[in-house]
Amino acid sequence: MLETEARGARRAAARPVGDGVSVVGMVGAGQLARMSLAAATALGVRLRLLAADADDAAAQVSPEVTVGAPADPAAVAAFAAGCDVLTFDHELVDLGLLAELEAAGHLIRPGPAALALAVDKCHQRAVLGAAGLPVPANAPVANEADVAAFAAVHGWPVVLKAATGGYDGRGVWVIDGPGALPEGTRGRPLLVEEHVAIRRELAVLVARRPHPGQAVTWPLVETVQVDGICVELVAPARVEPDVAEAATAIGLAVAEAAGVTGVLAVELFQTTTGELVVNELATRPHNSGHWTIEGARTSQFANHLRAVLDLPLGDPGLSAPAAATVNVLGGADGGDPRGRARLAGALAVDGVAVHLYGKQARPGRKLGHVTAVGPDPDGALAAARLAAAALAGEDRG
Amino acid sequence: MLETEARGARRAAARPVGDGVSVVGMVGAGQLARMSLAAATALGVRLRLLAADADDAAAQVSPEVTVGAPADPAAVAAFAAGCDVLTFDHELVDLGLLAELEAAGHLIRPGPAALALAVDKCHQRAVLGAAGLPVPANAPVANEADVAAFAAVHGWPVVLKAATGGYDGRGVWVIDGPGALPEGTRGRPLLVEEHVAIRRELAVLVARRPHPGQAVTWPLVETVQVDGICVELVAPARVEPDVAEAATAIGLAVAEAAGVTGVLAVELFQTTTGELVVNELATRPHNSGHWTIEGARTSQFANHLRAVLDLPLGDPGLSAPAAATVNVLGGADGGDPRGRARLAGALAVDGVAVHLYGKQARPGRKLGHVTAVGPDPDGALAAARLAAAALAGEDRG
Repeated sequence: MLETEARGARRAAARPVGDGVSVVGMVGAGQLARMSLAAATALGVRLRLLAADADDAAAQVSPEVTVGAPADPAAVAAFAAGCDVLTFDHELVDLGLLAELEAAGHLIRPGPAALALAVDKCHQRAVLGAAGLPVPANAPVANEADVAAFAAVHGWPVVLKAATGGYDGRGVWVIDGPGALPEGTRGRPLLVEEHVAIRRELAVLVARRPHPGQAVTWPLVETVQVDGICVELVAPARVEPDVAEAATAIGLAVAEAAGVTGVLAVELFQTTTGELVVNELATRPHNSGHWTIEGARTSQFANHLRAVLDLPLGDPGLSAPAAATVNVLGGADGGDPRGRARLAGALAVDGVAVHLYGKQARPGRKLGHVTAVGPDPDGALAAARLAAAALAGEDRG
Repeated sequence: MLETEARGARRAAARPVGDGVSVVGMVGAGQLARMSLAAATALGVRLRLLAADADDAAAQVSPEVTVGAPADPAAVAAFAAGCDVLTFDHELVDLGLLAELEAAGHLIRPGPAALALAVDKCHQRAVLGAAGLPVPANAPVANEADVAAFAAVHGWPVVLKAATGGYDGRGVWVIDGPGALPEGTRGRPLLVEEHVAIRRELAVLVARRPHPGQAVTWPLVETVQVDGICVELVAPARVEPDVAEAATAIGLAVAEAAGVTGVLAVELFQTTTGELVVNELATRPHNSGHWTIEGARTSQFANHLRAVLDLPLGDPGLSAPAAATVNVLGGADGGDPRGRARLAGALAVDGVAVHLYGKQARPGRKLGHVTAVGPDPDGALAAARLAAAALAGEDRG
């Protein structure tokens, strides 16, 4: 940890303090990159994108797009050469390649060591456990016998996770009893965990810059996940103050343990017995922070850029008593939320802001989100649900 | 007025209610277009730009730029053909050309009739005067004898204005007594006005959509102009409630009289005797509304797009007790505010958001603005001044 900080400090010091425009390169051009563009434009920072596809959500609205695969060494190296600092829209990256680039003098933020915690769940559990942070009981496993041995100690059901490559609920299986492991697990590194009885899901968002000592946390949020996808969130979380305080302390401790630069999202479970345990990490802006665009004084996208450029971070405080975000999923009819009638329906709801990602509509696909702010969490959530339903073509009016 | 509304309603009804993405074309690619991009991206609306130069503030950060002169009939017609609705970043437009495009079935918002009030000060004074709105005593003039005749009734000094083509203080002269008219007035249509003794300057921002009945006004702002350029503003204005109410009523009445679609900024003088008179109009987002990005629930840029697309307008209410905006002018040394040291200095000021326009630094040039929000206007103004000074390279810390 201290070593990481010291190296970070040396790199920052070695870098010329430019009088010109800073260039941030983002690997990936999805909705997180799309929402980062406004923050970069305001700061006068150039944000270049390495997009897998020229029609990606952010690539549609940026003039500085390179098309290339995030795991193609030549593409990533050429892209990095044109940027002052490299950062990420997703974790589907090649850590070995990034370590090489870092060794060659490129600024990679977050660095490969921090990214490894988001990329590899086995490694993450080991690091967090060693740091004394609360995680569910867990073990790396190779086969059904290992899983059964774990269950013999911790009981059924257990949760089996692909150690790498899973996201939005993919690569996670609840296993009720002994037997063959599910399709899709063969040949993959796996992690087994105790099945936690969940009272509610929470998320802490932290931004941390290399300059020692500055980390900020946004107010704790409450999230609702369906099939592993975050679909609703409320800020601030409707929990007792001591729970918010404990959760925030865990978020900051994870950020320290990870040595992260930029935004870190720490998803937590509050168990039915009141304990807090770390569920997942993301070392980048995250769905659970989308509310910060309207609901906080500084958005997660602005502070991520400020952090990776080692600039002073902005105030993460609330700009309204409450905010709620509801994801816009493609409706059953496959209709486009950008159509005038749907957009008009959503914008007619008081206090709502609409964010659409430019994606082709497909039933169930995450096409955007809406955030409502208001005097109380329940009212904000009701407004956001109404607007999201209008965009999905569901009549809840 | 009723006729304008009825025509607007017919046009909107005649337009197919599309299920696809709306395309807004903006003539001009300055900082107003630049700040409009974020609002368009969030709504999933495509914003295309007709830029005079490929390096214009907004053209740098948009992938949908056509380079062409705003007064070139072929360029504007070709540009309009690819858009659902045409709107504007500035008033340097050819009204005859726009009227032809409108007659040919293009949606022009604001329309040529409303734009004429911002383009031609003689016409504007005549229309507002006829509508019973308070304007300084004024007369169109052709030469020094006309000016002297006006002064014989209203007294010296008088204010002489170029009827068209002036902006940011250019084309305005204070004339202290009889004699030859200043350089730069020859051969231009001119307007003379009484010299108003000013207690303070205020601005009302209105957004109005064609759909009859929806117009919203943001809280009244107080502006400070130096050499005709808006350099500071405070929202809400530090005036008695009845002054704010009267000013807002004038703003709405001007919007009605102008038949405007989109954002209208009405700059007012409060005279030393307490009267309110209309100074200038802008039929587009305006410097006096930059504070709305952080300080209001809906920004002027978002509501301008919503208005020109005839979508429901968003809440213009405050998102903080007070906001202040200070323009960033190029410092005496010509240094770039995008340099890391200056940016870091500004971002270290609590509660401040930075907006830089991507322009080459020159002493006195408007390069960006900062907005601070906070519990009171004076504190917000002090913070914004500190951050703007840091960006200009002035040490006020």
